[in-house]
Amino acid sequence: MKLYDYFRSSAAYRVRIALNLKGVDAHREFVHLVKGQQRADAYLAVNRQGLVPALVTDEHVVLTQSLAIIEWLDEVHRAPALLPDDAFARARVRSIAMAIACDIHPLNNLRVLNYLSNTLGLSDEQKNGWYRYWVDIGFEALEQQLAGDALTGEFCHGDAPTLADVCLVPQVANARRYKIDLLPYPTIVRIDARCRELPAFANAAPEQQPDAF
Amino acid sequence: MKLYDYFRSSAAYRVRIALNLKGVDAHREFVHLVKGQQRADAYLAVNRQGLVPALVTDEHVVLTQSLAIIEWLDEVHRAPALLPDDAFARARVRSIAMAIACDIHPLNNLRVLNYLSNTLGLSDEQKNGWYRYWVDIGFEALEQQLAGDALTGEFCHGDAPTLADVCLVPQVANARRYKIDLLPYPTIVRIDARCRELPAFANAAPEQQPDAF
Repeated sequence: MKLYDYFRSSAAYRVRIALNLKGVDAHREFVHLVKGQQRADAYLAVNRQGLVPALVTDEHVVLTQSLAIIEWLDEVHRAPALLPDDAFARARVRSIAMAIACDIHPLNNLRVLNYLSNTLGLSDEQKNGWYRYWVDIGFEALEQQLAGDALTGEFCHGDAPTLADVCLVPQVANARRYKIDLLPYPTIVRIDARCRELPAFANAAPEQQPDAF
Repeated sequence: MKLYDYFRSSAAYRVRIALNLKGVDAHREFVHLVKGQQRADAYLAVNRQGLVPALVTDEHVVLTQSLAIIEWLDEVHRAPALLPDDAFARARVRSIAMAIACDIHPLNNLRVLNYLSNTLGLSDEQKNGWYRYWVDIGFEALEQQLAGDALTGEFCHGDAPTLADVCLVPQVANARRYKIDLLPYPTIVRIDARCRELPAFANAAPEQQPDAF
């Protein structure tokens, strides 16, 4: 298996965590996003979207989109399960994952920040304000949802990590990088800390990757 | 079952299509996004995120996030399946759905467009340019992916509608509304037209909804 990866990509970070949780090894190929390697023909031949991650399976099938990759991993490597058995519980876990992956992260991608700076000519202050606004609005709702629900346990759902935690930890890492005040989000902070006690999460962190600088 | 809906929300439109394909009836409650009803306490008590759709099941469980809702529907009402049986095929369908739901649509949401106008003070021309940029960059990759893959059939995946088509049609409707030139995307246009021949898609269209104005 081969993972096209970039240490600072949150979407790739999710897949690194999931691979670690499943105990699945993947050869790593690094695509340097700031240098624009994702737009080079060599990478576009792998993933037309020009985004990381992409996972090439042992059958040479290219899988893209982090959540689609992780659902696939969870289907073919069942244990430990990243989605609960019960359909309502699965929906809850997926909805937490997607509140992050669809409603926070896409707004704060490198390509979006580049558009704000380069095409729209916004100042760094405006760009950082944009970044914080979408994290705060997303985390406020998520904090209330997690804190007010008995289904929340040590992790986002119960006492074992799921797809929701796999999405949460990279988003919290991004929030810290942008110096967002996390005091209003004690449940998020607690779950993030619990996750990072696990080697699967800790070893997937951006600063632990071979391509980190 | 009760669907919190708004005619022009693409995410709600996806759920309307899925309900129609499954032949599942839901009582409709309309949340007028332009009037800000999604931020009223009554709706925030249903969905803290203040986004539509939300689906309240017969067991009074509130489900949020359109793709999580549709995965749940597909698990509890199996036929017709919106995801194929094969794990690789499921990953392909989900990756197409998410290329739209994570990488195009979140950038062009009403709340994002409001931020561009109100907080950043951008002109309508800049805002429309932003809208078109993200649709074009997403559709360019998707067109190549669909056109170059033998797994594409009458629909995004084979000859029956899947979760991928459920996401594609609302995004094409949005593109038309913003007068984006669709000539460079013949495969997308062909699949969209094929989908709209089906009553499940046609009856879910924004202009067919009781709250449309």
